[in-house]
Amino acid sequence: MENVVIGVDLGGTTTTLGAVTRSGEIRWRQTFDTRSAADFPAYIRQLSREIEAGRDQMGGEVVGIGVGAPAGNNRYGTVQAANLNWGGRVNFVEALSQHYDIPVSLDNDANATALGEMLFGAARSFRHFVLITLGTGLGSGIVVNGEVVSGSDGLAGEMGHICVDIDGRDCACGRKGCLETYVSANGLKRTVFHFLSQRTAPSVLREYSYNALTARQISEAATAGDPVALEAFDYTGRVLGLKLADAVAHTSPEAIILFGGLAGAGQLLMEPTARYLKQYMLFLYNPDIPLLPSALPHSDAAVLGAAALAWQKVEKTAHSLT
Amino acid sequence: MENVVIGVDLGGTTTTLGAVTRSGEIRWRQTFDTRSAADFPAYIRQLSREIEAGRDQMGGEVVGIGVGAPAGNNRYGTVQAANLNWGGRVNFVEALSQHYDIPVSLDNDANATALGEMLFGAARSFRHFVLITLGTGLGSGIVVNGEVVSGSDGLAGEMGHICVDIDGRDCACGRKGCLETYVSANGLKRTVFHFLSQRTAPSVLREYSYNALTARQISEAATAGDPVALEAFDYTGRVLGLKLADAVAHTSPEAIILFGGLAGAGQLLMEPTARYLKQYMLFLYNPDIPLLPSALPHSDAAVLGAAALAWQKVEKTAHSLT
Repeated sequence: MENVVIGVDLGGTTTTLGAVTRSGEIRWRQTFDTRSAADFPAYIRQLSREIEAGRDQMGGEVVGIGVGAPAGNNRYGTVQAANLNWGGRVNFVEALSQHYDIPVSLDNDANATALGEMLFGAARSFRHFVLITLGTGLGSGIVVNGEVVSGSDGLAGEMGHICVDIDGRDCACGRKGCLETYVSANGLKRTVFHFLSQRTAPSVLREYSYNALTARQISEAATAGDPVALEAFDYTGRVLGLKLADAVAHTSPEAIILFGGLAGAGQLLMEPTARYLKQYMLFLYNPDIPLLPSALPHSDAAVLGAAALAWQKVEKTAHSLT
Repeated sequence: MENVVIGVDLGGTTTTLGAVTRSGEIRWRQTFDTRSAADFPAYIRQLSREIEAGRDQMGGEVVGIGVGAPAGNNRYGTVQAANLNWGGRVNFVEALSQHYDIPVSLDNDANATALGEMLFGAARSFRHFVLITLGTGLGSGIVVNGEVVSGSDGLAGEMGHICVDIDGRDCACGRKGCLETYVSANGLKRTVFHFLSQRTAPSVLREYSYNALTARQISEAATAGDPVALEAFDYTGRVLGLKLADAVAHTSPEAIILFGGLAGAGQLLMEPTARYLKQYMLFLYNPDIPLLPSALPHSDAAVLGAAALAWQKVEKTAHSLT
């Protein structure tokens, strides 16, 4: 009987959980509606019931629980649940620990994904790397000496909000020119609209309204050779490459890993990012630092990341007891 | 008899060493000409002779040796001695370890200073901080969980070469717009010359050639109310504040410490840096993060930093033996 941990992906609408072995095999999966519970204690009770109901199918003892949550804080074990009626910030780790006498660990989803890559994915051979998640926004997890950097308050690794241009694009954070306003699905769209304004080249993208245009359509246009779409990807890779060169000057990682939907654009983004990263890298560092796509199966990545949090905690706890 | 470590500040012209207690008291000091040895083995022999000659005055057993060197690499124990006839890169830790059966540790001077601040200076209460050294250039040491971040190759923490403006000022590294071309004694002078070109305001700084102008003269002019000098400090603080806000988004430190000659300009630089740092900080973080001047006595800082490297290694070694 191989032990498992429970990985919990706490989403605003759906909670997904799975029982995961140390080698990353998912033995059991379950989902439920995050909003079906009346309040936070009810949610924790439901989560526990789901775990108990699955016990027989897990094929091993549950030795830990890991939780990945959008505004999860590893330092305090808390979740800031803005879209749920949980009354603001809740201490998830404390609440779960009242139900389970096993290690419980929690972090934000980008940090969980970073650990997932380290245990099960593209970073298995690395102890120092940077993970970038590309979706509507840009998230990041910075790993040093095999540990996610949490900083003084659990809030380290917010590379989506490093500054590209202090007089640049409005950001949801209230400032201007943050990296995620350039490098993300939404940033890519903004870049397309910029180049539609600058260039006279014909482009299929001139047919779309701002609200209608998606990253997928931009990818398809680029693949078909659309000059505006291609320039938008090149620009996105330039901005990302430059900021990754700066990130290297902070923590000198062995590799950089790109995760997420925009990264799913594949070589359209990877090629210019790698090219500009090499161009902008300080001479001290390896100019051919590996820039790798995620190696986690996309649909299971969040559960695997959460499970990785649990496995790391389980192994640390075991180590400190010996 | 209180134990001591030997802190060695390996400079291009002068080597300074001292015997330092765990509380930072310097019991004995010595200097010699780094270039007087014919080669690297001769240098190591001379260093050992100096240490032996001082034994009686150290008032305690020597339990470790730490070395701070401009291009020292903590990961490999090496020094890249460009200005010495040591035949390129030498393994300093290995060579010293053949003479001494005690822990030997080595790092670059900015990282050594960071540890010096943590053990003896302004960072005594911090486990997560960023140290910036301001001199002719800009150096940095990033501390996470009480350890200097070395990265995959010992080369982490080169914040002097993060990018301010990719089309900006020529940098000695061969690229353009690196932070140290703006924020350093030399960067301040370049900024003065920029504003002399932009403004029509009278300024005493219009009397100086580029080669004649020093940071001290700019400080004196600013203190006397010179508008160009004041604008240059404000601009320098703006650039530094912005990049420190980005550094916070990487590792979320408890504090930032400024060390060095330009920081000696005191409030002229600290005030605008703190103001812009607060303005540019992502809302998640403490906008009033402490921005502190070094608390190491300037003339002893390098020896204390090197001694801090030794003490950290000594304590880790002791911990791993128990």
